[in-house]
Amino acid sequence: MSLIIVGSVAFDTIETPSGRRDRIIGGSGTYAALAASFFVRPGLVSVVGRDFPRSFLAGLRSRNIDLAGLRIKQGKTFFWHGRYDRDPNLRTTVRTELNVLQNFKPVLPDSFRQADLVFLSNLDPESHDFILGQLQAVKLVAMDTIRYWIENKPQALLRAIQKVDILFVNDEECRLMAEELNLVRAGRKLQMAGPKIVVVKKGEHGAMLFGRNFVFGVVANPCERVVDPTGAGDAFAGAFLGYLDSVGRFNRKELKKAAVYGNLVASLVIEDFGVEGLLRASQLEIINRYRQFRKLCTF
Amino acid sequence: MSLIIVGSVAFDTIETPSGRRDRIIGGSGTYAALAASFFVRPGLVSVVGRDFPRSFLAGLRSRNIDLAGLRIKQGKTFFWHGRYDRDPNLRTTVRTELNVLQNFKPVLPDSFRQADLVFLSNLDPESHDFILGQLQAVKLVAMDTIRYWIENKPQALLRAIQKVDILFVNDEECRLMAEELNLVRAGRKLQMAGPKIVVVKKGEHGAMLFGRNFVFGVVANPCERVVDPTGAGDAFAGAFLGYLDSVGRFNRKELKKAAVYGNLVASLVIEDFGVEGLLRASQLEIINRYRQFRKLCTF
Repeated sequence: MSLIIVGSVAFDTIETPSGRRDRIIGGSGTYAALAASFFVRPGLVSVVGRDFPRSFLAGLRSRNIDLAGLRIKQGKTFFWHGRYDRDPNLRTTVRTELNVLQNFKPVLPDSFRQADLVFLSNLDPESHDFILGQLQAVKLVAMDTIRYWIENKPQALLRAIQKVDILFVNDEECRLMAEELNLVRAGRKLQMAGPKIVVVKKGEHGAMLFGRNFVFGVVANPCERVVDPTGAGDAFAGAFLGYLDSVGRFNRKELKKAAVYGNLVASLVIEDFGVEGLLRASQLEIINRYRQFRKLCTF
Repeated sequence: MSLIIVGSVAFDTIETPSGRRDRIIGGSGTYAALAASFFVRPGLVSVVGRDFPRSFLAGLRSRNIDLAGLRIKQGKTFFWHGRYDRDPNLRTTVRTELNVLQNFKPVLPDSFRQADLVFLSNLDPESHDFILGQLQAVKLVAMDTIRYWIENKPQALLRAIQKVDILFVNDEECRLMAEELNLVRAGRKLQMAGPKIVVVKKGEHGAMLFGRNFVFGVVANPCERVVDPTGAGDAFAGAFLGYLDSVGRFNRKELKKAAVYGNLVASLVIEDFGVEGLLRASQLEIINRYRQFRKLCTF
């Protein structure tokens, strides 16, 4: 057991210009774990309701995800309904039902407490200490966040980012958190505020990585058909951390490659609804995309 | 004489959150020629009024620009007044005075008619044939355009792009011209419509290059202080073409490097008002930036 991911497993209803899907499987934990599973066997810590299909849990297990940390609770699974505009960067939340996610205390099974890497995905920043306190040998702590926590618990969030090694944010969150419009300055400012590494995900424009004494930039994998952007950021982080876990080194060279893999796995996600793109892809496809992509941006 | 640039030389008044400059030297031809002059001795075809400072013309000459194609006409120099918002991508034109640029017929001096490369910068697409008809040995024709021509002469523009090898557009123009929101599809669509190469400039997000059977993506040089974005796109194209002219080959490898140089020289421009950044930089600085940038995006 090396990488564990604490995040949501959900039902999503998604409307995009390409169509609509009702109550498909989603959640930040699901996307991150599936993305990481191309590289390692991640452990997932989450909660679902009794309405969650057992067949999908079997599917996650068969994809090399350890579900020892997944609780099935009386009640309904977390539900999110989102709508995308013609511009895939514009997203409206139609409805959120926390359901069993409300008051969820992520207690880790014993087998997860020796994890080397942990990803705290979109959690209440005040819950981080409770999780980190259960880990006995953690080497690398990563987190991401959402607009809700930036706006509603800014102080707790600032304390939380001081305790992590890697902070994932998207460009909008980065500007908002840093209170700075210039993305390069904003990324650097967040990096100075605590995390060793800040990874800024820029959607169709790729990603930037700010380290203590280096910056790395990578374009997005060109995508001609954005069907559903849901989960792309979570998959980015999952693949990033899965790759790092697989190589066991966190140096500059591997961090850069991790960002490229994050990028490529995210591009799989947006080409189809929900987790379809992730479920369909093989490790071989990731390797092929990596090779293609290298050509695309080498000069 | 190899690369000639047909474009405007202007007085610009510029307001940005960093300050205001009144009647400084600008114009697409000026930016493109200065940028190209890091690599070759470009010829500039343009027109100014009698109010244009001779000292600046001497300055251009000393920067290795051939002004045999620059006419000084009775009247006032083209004037543009623009204002940038806190977001440097949002620009308002406060005022435009065409002045001597109105009814300007770009007649090339004999010494320019053997040019190998020509850059038609923001010109009325209906004037292209007149210029191209004067060239006797041209190997590569490049153009860019502005929103005004896309909206007011779309048919002439479509005919014009069929006769060029390289089309430079920014992301907004690309989407508008292709009537397609997805930038990858839009770029490819324009490329299918005629030009061998479409170069999409994405400002702070870098650039994409669409060739017949390849795509190239490059991030922007991270810039922590955007002072004035005016002319960055023109400088991009000028450096791109100047580099190509200097190597004399137009293959995939050199096109990619040309885009990187375009990127880097554009980053010089935005760090200061007007052409200040270009005037201050040396060839050595370009070489250093190239080396640094390579590290930044190699994985």
